[in-house]
Amino acid sequence: MIKLHGFWRSLASYRVRAALRLKGLEFEEIEVDLLKGAQFTPEFDAVNPQHAVPVLEIDGLHLVQSLPIIEYLEERFPATALLPADAAGRARVRALAQIAASDVHPLIVPRVRNYLGNPLGLSEEAKVAFIQHWFKLGSDALEARLARDTETGSFAHGEAPGLADVVLTSHVLGARIFKTDLSAAPRLGALADRCLAQPAFDPGGMKQML
Amino acid sequence: MIKLHGFWRSLASYRVRAALRLKGLEFEEIEVDLLKGAQFTPEFDAVNPQHAVPVLEIDGLHLVQSLPIIEYLEERFPATALLPADAAGRARVRALAQIAASDVHPLIVPRVRNYLGNPLGLSEEAKVAFIQHWFKLGSDALEARLARDTETGSFAHGEAPGLADVVLTSHVLGARIFKTDLSAAPRLGALADRCLAQPAFDPGGMKQML
Repeated sequence: MIKLHGFWRSLASYRVRAALRLKGLEFEEIEVDLLKGAQFTPEFDAVNPQHAVPVLEIDGLHLVQSLPIIEYLEERFPATALLPADAAGRARVRALAQIAASDVHPLIVPRVRNYLGNPLGLSEEAKVAFIQHWFKLGSDALEARLARDTETGSFAHGEAPGLADVVLTSHVLGARIFKTDLSAAPRLGALADRCLAQPAFDPGGMKQML
Repeated sequence: MIKLHGFWRSLASYRVRAALRLKGLEFEEIEVDLLKGAQFTPEFDAVNPQHAVPVLEIDGLHLVQSLPIIEYLEERFPATALLPADAAGRARVRALAQIAASDVHPLIVPRVRNYLGNPLGLSEEAKVAFIQHWFKLGSDALEARLARDTETGSFAHGEAPGLADVVLTSHVLGARIFKTDLSAAPRLGALADRCLAQPAFDPGGMKQML
């Protein structure tokens, strides 16, 4: 049985969970309560020395980092493809995913918010402004891409949800949780709403924060 | 002819340049002077609405984001493979790359340093401490992986340089430019030095900053 070490409010765990569900794969989720510091126990250090979720236990491996995990699932279980069949399409989808997962998400995770508080001494208001700033910048970049590229369909790349949709929906969920103004990114918001209407994209415990 | 829109001190451009060289591909580099704001001209907006380098012009496409660009090169030009042949190995190499490219690099780029100065009003000293903090945290995570994984060889994954080495060397270059204490990551430093001894990894103009 595939095991996902994740947490309900981790956007990166959400991506892997949605990808597993889109592929129809059975899995068991093991909660790593980041709010209680469960990622810093010796048990979890043995699972991932970076003390981060998600970790996917599969085929005797402990895979880390959400995008490489999804690429692995795509290679092992090609049915219900999450990446396009052509190299140019794959490059586009991976780039959309990176704009959200690399250019924005690392700036808004708990360890960065903690650092902004201590040692930097930022107020809650300044912390939220910091988070909203990067969500907005990334959303504008994604919106420009979605508006400009002819490959954009009902979903990020054509008419079925895939890797980019999983990551873009995690981005929109995060942006909404932090009350970011996404009015300049209507395509991105509509795309996330189309995804969120599907069971695979169920945001679980994050619903109460939206 | 392949064209790389890049900049001499962009760590992400460096990754693509090193990958092109490792694969022995001819390319022309077009400098986008980030210090002069060349990324914000209407001409460059047409190339990349995210106003970031690198952009790779190839096969009539404008590819963005360093890791998806390198994945594209790997698919189009499989000779001198930069990713392992097995799915588990590819997942490991991609994860090592993401630890550096996603968990660290987005925190230290000019747009974040600028935000720390204005509106946050941080001193130069606090900015440098911020940058060093994330470089050190990422280096410790990479060191733990390299030390623990049996796949580690003279390079990040076995005995030839690949995607992970390209990204880890860009990480070490950045860490050294900002005078980060990497004494707790000796394997990572030695790996970067082995790479830097090869012509493909020439740091060009960054040499003067080391």
